[in-house]
Amino acid sequence: MINRTSPVNPLTKEHILVSPHRTKRPWMGQTEPPQTSSLPSYDEKCLLCPGNARMGGQKNPNYQQTFAFENDFAAILPAPAPAAPEPLHSLMTTEPVHGGCDVLMFHPRHDLTLARMSIHDIGCVITEWIRIYLERGSQPGIEYVQIFENKGSIMGCSNPHPHGQIWSLSAVPTIPMQELRSLKEYATEMALSSEGPRRPDGKPCMLCDYAHEELKIPLAQGRVVVSNEHWLAIVPWWATWPFETMVLPYRRHVEAISDLTDEEKMAFADIIYRLTRRYDNLFSCSFAYSMGMHQRPVPVKNGDVVEEGEDETNFAHLHLHFDPPLLRSASVRKFLVGFEMMAEAQRDLTPEQAAARLRDCSEIHYTETAQ
Amino acid sequence: MINRTSPVNPLTKEHILVSPHRTKRPWMGQTEPPQTSSLPSYDEKCLLCPGNARMGGQKNPNYQQTFAFENDFAAILPAPAPAAPEPLHSLMTTEPVHGGCDVLMFHPRHDLTLARMSIHDIGCVITEWIRIYLERGSQPGIEYVQIFENKGSIMGCSNPHPHGQIWSLSAVPTIPMQELRSLKEYATEMALSSEGPRRPDGKPCMLCDYAHEELKIPLAQGRVVVSNEHWLAIVPWWATWPFETMVLPYRRHVEAISDLTDEEKMAFADIIYRLTRRYDNLFSCSFAYSMGMHQRPVPVKNGDVVEEGEDETNFAHLHLHFDPPLLRSASVRKFLVGFEMMAEAQRDLTPEQAAARLRDCSEIHYTETAQ
Ligand SMILES: O=P(O)(O)O[C@H]1O[C@H](CO)[C@@H](O)[C@H](O)[C@H]1O
Ligand SMILES: O=P(O)(O)O[C@H]1O[C@H](CO)[C@@H](O)[C@H](O)[C@H]1O
Repeated sequence: MINRTSPVNPLTKEHILVSPHRTKRPWMGQTEPPQTSSLPSYDEKCLLCPGNARMGGQKNPNYQQTFAFENDFAAILPAPAPAAPEPLHSLMTTEPVHGGCDVLMFHPRHDLTLARMSIHDIGCVITEWIRIYLERGSQPGIEYVQIFENKGSIMGCSNPHPHGQIWSLSAVPTIPMQELRSLKEYATEMALSSEGPRRPDGKPCMLCDYAHEELKIPLAQGRVVVSNEHWLAIVPWWATWPFETMVLPYRRHVEAISDLTDEEKMAFADIIYRLTRRYDNLFSCSFAYSMGMHQRPVPVKNGDVVEEGEDETNFAHLHLHFDPPLLRSASVRKFLVGFEMMAEAQRDLTPEQAAARLRDCSEIHYTETAQ
Repeated sequence: MINRTSPVNPLTKEHILVSPHRTKRPWMGQTEPPQTSSLPSYDEKCLLCPGNARMGGQKNPNYQQTFAFENDFAAILPAPAPAAPEPLHSLMTTEPVHGGCDVLMFHPRHDLTLARMSIHDIGCVITEWIRIYLERGSQPGIEYVQIFENKGSIMGCSNPHPHGQIWSLSAVPTIPMQELRSLKEYATEMALSSEGPRRPDGKPCMLCDYAHEELKIPLAQGRVVVSNEHWLAIVPWWATWPFETMVLPYRRHVEAISDLTDEEKMAFADIIYRLTRRYDNLFSCSFAYSMGMHQRPVPVKNGDVVEEGEDETNFAHLHLHFDPPLLRSASVRKFLVGFEMMAEAQRDLTPEQAAARLRDCSEIHYTETAQ
């Protein structure tokens, strides 16, 4: 008998309809062009390659490792934001927002995505994420820093040169705010129900507890894809995208990327290395996704008095979301449309099936074995 | 000076970042295959054309107008749903769900989308929506009926034959539940702030007020695309998708499609006719979208005592959402990825710009003028 259940995402309070029997239907809709992994290591037309000129006319330096610059077409502009006009009615209000958008090149090589970079190189990307988080997060008026990556043209990425983005703004956006509220609720209202690591104030952390409980389940029956000494990559109980994962530190409560010890940083690079290679190997393609980091919205500011319980931002636990759209093959994706846009997320395979598929993948990149 | 503001969607409580300066950036990412309007009027390979055999082997009748059948690969299965297993932890709960999925062919002709059908034919679709809403909505255990359409292969539609879907289930899904909660909050907690039509209990309705306030704004400055005696199509103040619209009755408070008078039904067909033709004409293509209807989750059941304020489901105001992805042309879409998936929706043109563009479109379909 087929199981149909609707778990809840405790971070967003959204339900997900699970219909594993549905993968049986033949797919007759749109297929995606293959996401090629065979790119040149340098492309003279690429706006992000070392030494090339960008859209605004500026020239990239001959960077050897990573390189960050302010987006030439930023969605969020610097202060001052224009004053909001007087609303005609309470249903038509606006809030001015200011901030900045950075682009971070992960590597000089045009063809090396995270899935093909060394652990050392991924470590350098993490170092840059920390630097930008600390720098942008301490600018006046900045209340939130979003680190993310769109990988693959089917995820709206307009340049295959490996890069991510960092958008900083003067307000905590909708989704992380909802997550923070849920984390606060869990810490302040829940009875202790797990032996997971505790917050410094002794209260439970939802994600520490969640990781702890998942790790108790035998690997073959569970949702863990891969883990190391400090980090865990898991298809969460409430995954929406077919091969969605969450990556988080599970040994202790960690609020932000800037709080990681050197050892935890290296283990972070290791888990990204091991997960992204599995992703590429799953369908032998450069696996598209949107990836984003959730953590404390900005670093604790000098002189800030953190009053317990006062503010949602004190309840973060650092984690990454990987949201990849492919479902059946390198060219058949899951469309989250129609019912999903109007009513509720729906998935066609169980999180356990997805985790097992990813666990079975090698950590040697398919382009390396093919040679 | 460029305006950057973040309005709030009062139905979902989500913010939307508006960055109209961003359309200036050149687009170098993925382009979509053109959505052709030139299909044969009958396709012998089509699973939905009259007289043809479907996937499960059943044969479609030689239907002359509309035709509905139960999906051969339903995401939601009939009762009884399997019992939920004992949760290992409160973060890993499930809720069994049951229901059914229907497919509704809008017209026997393979090539006639809503944008090319007559008002009479659209009226027949509405009649079917009402029939299925009443039928499914009164089945035992069914608590919600979602009417929707995915149009275009870029919106995950696997067959261009004009059709929509109706998914019925034993629980109110996440998004409509959030909308109903917001509508209830507005009705029960807000001070009267508009002369819009009232609910039968004298309380204000958010969407009646919203429509009323928008109609006070001079057309050229506002967000109204088109209206008739009873209905309004508007790019809402809080639109996320570039050319998103909301279609709603504005003369009186209407809970559900089955409450429409004959005159209101014909006016509903008229507004769909006038809006979808504008959509196709905007970029001279068969304009892709997901469309969905929100209303009272199920019809008031015989013998139900409606206790005022008791239940969110009593606060619905009937409306359609059209969520179309195209942004710049028939082949360049907006990707809601990365920042949008991890943090907050973001749009590249203002709702007023989008409304003006749609207002300027003709209601004569471009394929008709070309002949
Ligand atoms: O049922 P269809 O048209 O085959 O499938 C389409 O619509 C469904 C409901 O919105 C989605 O779940 C699918 O991902 C989409 O491809
Ligand atoms: O900034 P890019 O890579 O050109 O653009 C991409 O990422 C942005 C942030 O997620 C999105 O708003 C765009 O729709 C997408 O195409």
